[in-house]
Amino acid sequence: MAANVQDVFMLVGDSLTQGGWAPGDTGIGQRLAHAYARKLDVLNRGYSGYNTEWALPVVEQCIAQREDERAPKIRVLTLWFGANDACIKPSPQHVPLEKFEANIRKMINLVQSRSPDTRILLITAPPVNTHQRKADLESRDPPVPLDRLFETSKQYADAVRAIGEELGLGILWVACGEDEAAFSDFSPDGLHLNERGYEVLYDELIRVISDKYPEVHHDNLGFVFPPWKDIDWEHPERTFGTSKTV
Amino acid sequence: MAANVQDVFMLVGDSLTQGGWAPGDTGIGQRLAHAYARKLDVLNRGYSGYNTEWALPVVEQCIAQREDERAPKIRVLTLWFGANDACIKPSPQHVPLEKFEANIRKMINLVQSRSPDTRILLITAPPVNTHQRKADLESRDPPVPLDRLFETSKQYADAVRAIGEELGLGILWVACGEDEAAFSDFSPDGLHLNERGYEVLYDELIRVISDKYPEVHHDNLGFVFPPWKDIDWEHPERTFGTSKTV
Repeated sequence: MAANVQDVFMLVGDSLTQGGWAPGDTGIGQRLAHAYARKLDVLNRGYSGYNTEWALPVVEQCIAQREDERAPKIRVLTLWFGANDACIKPSPQHVPLEKFEANIRKMINLVQSRSPDTRILLITAPPVNTHQRKADLESRDPPVPLDRLFETSKQYADAVRAIGEELGLGILWVACGEDEAAFSDFSPDGLHLNERGYEVLYDELIRVISDKYPEVHHDNLGFVFPPWKDIDWEHPERTFGTSKTV
Repeated sequence: MAANVQDVFMLVGDSLTQGGWAPGDTGIGQRLAHAYARKLDVLNRGYSGYNTEWALPVVEQCIAQREDERAPKIRVLTLWFGANDACIKPSPQHVPLEKFEANIRKMINLVQSRSPDTRILLITAPPVNTHQRKADLESRDPPVPLDRLFETSKQYADAVRAIGEELGLGILWVACGEDEAAFSDFSPDGLHLNERGYEVLYDELIRVISDKYPEVHHDNLGFVFPPWKDIDWEHPERTFGTSKTV
């Protein structure tokens, strides 16, 4: 069994989260895992294709009941949904905007009620570049009709931002502006992020943490186990305590 | 609190392990986190500069006592030490070979006694390219004398391999051959690994898992939560169970 030695930075979302460790690009998960090494375990709770309706029971299982004192604390948690909820009908991933908003609020309530000290960051779904997305879908066999619209996806992003502002949470407004075409610099397919997209997101995430939750910025957290130069080399038991079983 | 939803792939070692998520290169940690996404949490338990003498009490704290049933299971664990123990005197990191061997055995005993189902993989310290290493150390301010020797480091790697063979564990014999100079293709500084080094290591790690412990190969582990196309879209409670609190 793995003992609880490090608290947790939990990334909850869809494929944009799940893909943050993909080789080749340096994604959001890799960057955070590096920055928080020996401080917090960065856990991937991204589920490709999931909308909030399906993710809600998953989130419920990922956050322990408060009485479970031996579980690691979730110091920071990102919620990054909307990219799939914003699919247009007849996509099975479509969730009506009001239902999406209600689901995001339920997730936030769930985290806050079970884990009140967790710093929550809401990340908005990126803009869709429908030209890229359409080309991608049309190249498939069989071709797939366009499933997302720029304006619709933006409504879902706006809704997340509004909830975050109302509740005073950290918000990451992803790479939007109003320019659909400009997103191609940050996306391989008009929907997901490439290395440059993740880099911008990471820098913004760290900036928001710095402003809003500086106590969990990686520079403000110490190593769980000390740097080797701080160990009492001849008497490591004075650094680590006396071993009981080894 | 983070609930226990995924078992664990734990990477235990020194800076070679800790650095496996560094941005720019695609390291061992990133590759494993991607391959095992939604299956196992890949935890970084790498401690830069640590030898086995200092790491032993850390390992003891990272492996839970068996009665802690709510902790995640460690399905796979890598032990990758020797690079620092093999430092030559008067380095404070030096650990005599016999002591190093005893410490590796203690770590293995600790894992096997507390977590008998954990698949253990021993990784040997890479060869040292003393030409690269010397140039690196001499460029520092103040310059540092050469602290590792090819032949000495090889003895520590040989010792790990011998222990692994004796105990029937998975072994990764890193990039050795007998050619010190050839290591420069896989290392930025004669001691650590570059992206190419981590790529070779990853491929070898997956090959050893495939041969020795196929039941924990990523292709043989299912997602903890199903792919979105397998969800009962209209009745997600039939997939995830009925929510009790949301």
